[in-house]
Amino acid sequence: MDSSEFRRRGKEMVDYIADYLEGIEGRPVYPDVEPGYLRPLIPTAAPQEPEAYEDIIKDIEKIIMPGVTHWHSPYFFAYFPTASSYPAMLADMLCGAIGCIGFTWAASPACTELETVMMDWLGKMLQLPEAFLAGRAGEGGGVIQGSASEATLVALLAARTKAIRQLQAASPGLTQAAIMEKLVAYTSDQAHSSVERAGLIGGVKLKTIPSDGNFSMRASALQEALEQDKAAGLIPFFVSNLEGVWLHIDAAYAGSAFICPEFRYLLNGVEFADSFNFNPHKWLLVNFDCSAMWVKKRTDLTGAFKLDPVYLKHNHQDSGLITDYRHWQIPLGRRFRSLKMWFVFRMYGVKGLQAYIRKHVALSHEFESLVRQDPRFEICTEVILGLVCFRLKGSNQLNETLLQRINSTKKIHLVPCHLRDKFVLRFAVCSRTVESAHVQLAWEHIRELASSVLRAEKQ
Amino acid sequence: MDSSEFRRRGKEMVDYIADYLEGIEGRPVYPDVEPGYLRPLIPTAAPQEPEAYEDIIKDIEKIIMPGVTHWHSPYFFAYFPTASSYPAMLADMLCGAIGCIGFTWAASPACTELETVMMDWLGKMLQLPEAFLAGRAGEGGGVIQGSASEATLVALLAARTKAIRQLQAASPGLTQAAIMEKLVAYTSDQAHSSVERAGLIGGVKLKTIPSDGNFSMRASALQEALEQDKAAGLIPFFVSNLEGVWLHIDAAYAGSAFICPEFRYLLNGVEFADSFNFNPHKWLLVNFDCSAMWVKKRTDLTGAFKLDPVYLKHNHQDSGLITDYRHWQIPLGRRFRSLKMWFVFRMYGVKGLQAYIRKHVALSHEFESLVRQDPRFEICTEVILGLVCFRLKGSNQLNETLLQRINSTKKIHLVPCHLRDKFVLRFAVCSRTVESAHVQLAWEHIRELASSVLRAEKQ
Repeated sequence: MDSSEFRRRGKEMVDYIADYLEGIEGRPVYPDVEPGYLRPLIPTAAPQEPEAYEDIIKDIEKIIMPGVTHWHSPYFFAYFPTASSYPAMLADMLCGAIGCIGFTWAASPACTELETVMMDWLGKMLQLPEAFLAGRAGEGGGVIQGSASEATLVALLAARTKAIRQLQAASPGLTQAAIMEKLVAYTSDQAHSSVERAGLIGGVKLKTIPSDGNFSMRASALQEALEQDKAAGLIPFFVSNLEGVWLHIDAAYAGSAFICPEFRYLLNGVEFADSFNFNPHKWLLVNFDCSAMWVKKRTDLTGAFKLDPVYLKHNHQDSGLITDYRHWQIPLGRRFRSLKMWFVFRMYGVKGLQAYIRKHVALSHEFESLVRQDPRFEICTEVILGLVCFRLKGSNQLNETLLQRINSTKKIHLVPCHLRDKFVLRFAVCSRTVESAHVQLAWEHIRELASSVLRAEKQ
Repeated sequence: MDSSEFRRRGKEMVDYIADYLEGIEGRPVYPDVEPGYLRPLIPTAAPQEPEAYEDIIKDIEKIIMPGVTHWHSPYFFAYFPTASSYPAMLADMLCGAIGCIGFTWAASPACTELETVMMDWLGKMLQLPEAFLAGRAGEGGGVIQGSASEATLVALLAARTKAIRQLQAASPGLTQAAIMEKLVAYTSDQAHSSVERAGLIGGVKLKTIPSDGNFSMRASALQEALEQDKAAGLIPFFVSNLEGVWLHIDAAYAGSAFICPEFRYLLNGVEFADSFNFNPHKWLLVNFDCSAMWVKKRTDLTGAFKLDPVYLKHNHQDSGLITDYRHWQIPLGRRFRSLKMWFVFRMYGVKGLQAYIRKHVALSHEFESLVRQDPRFEICTEVILGLVCFRLKGSNQLNETLLQRINSTKKIHLVPCHLRDKFVLRFAVCSRTVESAHVQLAWEHIRELASSVLRAEKQ
């Protein structure tokens, strides 16, 4: 395919994408396929000779779309939102065309520098403490990670390295393994599974702290665990900055809301953190992947990973002015993802982004009030942002049945969670195009299925 | 921006991309900017109100392009190639529009299933042993990772978990830390820095095995190290399948060439490996990121990471038929990257991809023969694929000066490496559009600068 064919095919693809997103409401949100559906539909090996572009395009509707869960359908209320906006898609096209790999400053200075500045812009939108910003001479700064899981792992590894170095400096005879055996990280019993996984990868103990009646971790419960563990000879190193322990805050979903002054209070205390992360690729209209992570001391990260082979050295490296982002992350390669932030922030403006967040929060409260009007249902946690946890009053089995009916009917899509021993349905406001009418329809649909499930139970 | 504006702006972007790539030869391959160039050019904070799209687009040429290292210029001979093709860009546009997050099968069945089948297609193109393919009922299979660094880390973590479990099964009293203290991974002293980094992250010892005169690791040298370490009470667990030790093969760059029968011999012995990885995003025309990794036993990977929160559970999960790729990788989220493979394999056909590899290899041999005709230069390693390591006969200082002259003149771009104590220039055939004429021009340019550097030295 030469550039003149790309001009033609690219424009067709732009129209296909606009058609897809305009018409997404008409597609079943959840696919009607069984595991293994795709393999029999395509050849067992790559073709030897080139195929016609038209044949490939025809296969998209024939083979791919029937198996797609449509995350951007206004009837998708599962997991958390994943961002989608036209400005981000345009920026991603440009990112693919430039196609630079920004592992060092020299590998593409614009790629590195726009990222640093966009992370400062975003940090200011969130009113992050100055210490987290790179500015012209700060010790902190931001980096785009691929996912919050990676950010958590990177923070845990940096904290581990820091703890090992401090303890070895104090007692030079201690081996790394002897220290690692005693290191303990802490997280809430309500934390995302990625935290447990980071502990597993980092080879350290991870303890969960029981949460309170609002599913929040209390400082007193953490303090108690820290003291018990220290008395038992263990070394707390990750969670809270009490006594030099690293505090990482993961606000993967909620973080986007902190650009609205009325939700910023949820981030109070970030000034005590060593690292903070959230995902603009969830709720800030920047398409996946774009996970924003800040640290107060960038040398904590770079010190944990820095290896400098000669083929990645460059002239400006030791000037202190430049950033080599490869030292901030697990992979070496990285794309020009800050273009997406730049396009989105400028095309929406801060006010446009705030309005977007507020619209979703209003929709979740609308859903909440619908649920509260039906005495058969209960709301399970306070509704603060775009997520409503609700259930039928009654057994877990009843709620599992309801969820199965919802997802097999495929008009809307939800996923469950457990709150302690309760099986709970999650209604997450997700799509960029979701409106009150969709929420109303979704609720009517849930009510009808609930009536049917309850009738069946009584028989 | 609504969909009708996207139709217009998207088509303009397609033209901008085609113009950029058609005209890339006319841009300086390496940017003429100093660290910190970008910050003064843009505002210190995001705008409150939306900006006009035209203003953003104007800033691309004004602010971004002056700081871009043009990896797809035919005068870019640095690092290794990063793939760029129009079919991959079209597929990436589609991937962005579908915008699903394929962490589980249910989160988008097409995303998972196309990936499994594309990895089988690619495995067959490389003539990988059957054990690495998923097929309909295989124990192995492939996964797209973001980078070879991640693949190496994932393999090392899987090997670590396996070793710990085996040793604890034999001696239940052993703690994880006591085992990790003794675990040793091995790699060649010529290996990429990502291997050392994986050892660092995994918290295990990593030893380098001295390479031979051809910079290859010899089995005998490895055997010797293994025996010494075992005698010293350590536990070898990662490199070679000798005595149950995990062998991971990383062919990040070279792997693409193995689709040509004449280069397949370089992969002989892969049948003894537990895991194998290479980057189609380097040399197989699939834009970044797309790092292909296969394992013989997928349960080795999934067993190392598996955590199953209820919100990611789904009906088919325990059917044995489905794949949840989140258990195969570090991050949780993942894009629909197999679309790029599908488009590229079908638009080029295997023969088209082979022709592309062969063209690059021919160009590197052309450059090699030019170097050999000039008695002032020497070739430093055998030229097998698309990389030529060469230098001026003489001191390292002389060669460092030559490289500085090359990169400050900015007509072409190269990076160096060290081969033992020698400073060496690397000429990597990179761009999809590089032709003999570019290689000839590059060589003439290097010769002229060499003459000037040699004259200056004599004075």
